[in-house]
Amino acid sequence: MNSSELTPSEIMDIAIKEARAALEEDEVPVGAVLLFKDGEIFRAHNRKEKENFFHHAEIIVLKNGLQNKGKENLRNSILYVTLEPCLMCLGAMIEARISGLVFGSYEEKFGGVELLQTLWKEGRYPHKFPFYGGFKKEECEEILKTFFLKKRKK
Amino acid sequence: MNSSELTPSEIMDIAIKEARAALEEDEVPVGAVLLFKDGEIFRAHNRKEKENFFHHAEIIVLKNGLQNKGKENLRNSILYVTLEPCLMCLGAMIEARISGLVFGSYEEKFGGVELLQTLWKEGRYPHKFPFYGGFKKEECEEILKTFFLKKRKK
Repeated sequence: MNSSELTPSEIMDIAIKEARAALEEDEVPVGAVLLFKDGEIFRAHNRKEKENFFHHAEIIVLKNGLQNKGKENLRNSILYVTLEPCLMCLGAMIEARISGLVFGSYEEKFGGVELLQTLWKEGRYPHKFPFYGGFKKEECEEILKTFFLKKRKK
Repeated sequence: MNSSELTPSEIMDIAIKEARAALEEDEVPVGAVLLFKDGEIFRAHNRKEKENFFHHAEIIVLKNGLQNKGKENLRNSILYVTLEPCLMCLGAMIEARISGLVFGSYEEKFGGVELLQTLWKEGRYPHKFPFYGGFKKEECEEILKTFFLKKRKK
């Protein structure tokens, strides 16, 4: 899919749509979009229950991006995700050497962004990328709340 | 492979053999063994160059273990690896809920164990596992040194 004319807000809306698709499949609703420099995007949602714990939305888009665009292009990609990534996904982003991260909700228990900043300050993990958290936060949080409310009712 | 009678030292020796196999393939020499409660083990080495950055030794053994033994058994597995794991691999171990980690060399730039401890102290990442670093350190370091010396000569 080529979307060179999409704004960041429209890209996050696609990630949010992916999160909603996860919700309908009874998966923790997280959606991700990987945007390449040429405008091409890859989209996915969490499939942890259907597949396994390696299938976080971020890992799926990174894998698809890598397979289809190659690792050189990954270096100029920006990852959008509705929830703050976990350590595994942040580690994969460092390995992929992406050039930016935008996320929606903050994740207090499993989020790893703050920690990554600490590492960077200590001069570790030489590959740094800028990130922006809290983008379209309310919408992203709403979907997560709906999911956990549904779970509690069951 | 069933190895219920292997000692920790013998298990690390298998990981070291895997690291040597990686060295021969011109891969950063890291080897890993995943030990299940019933004694079965899964072994692998880094295949980052031949495949891609998802193919760290730890990820390969976790994937093989998951496919062959299921996620419930993963919870009682112990991961042996010749080098301190990166964030991606530690994140995968948390997702897998392994019950222990033993590693050889420390990795100053990309190692994530210290960081993980900080998170645990802050009450984040509820799944904790004991780990032991520096096991058979000299042998593990020797293989890495050989690799980087070879690289420099080229």
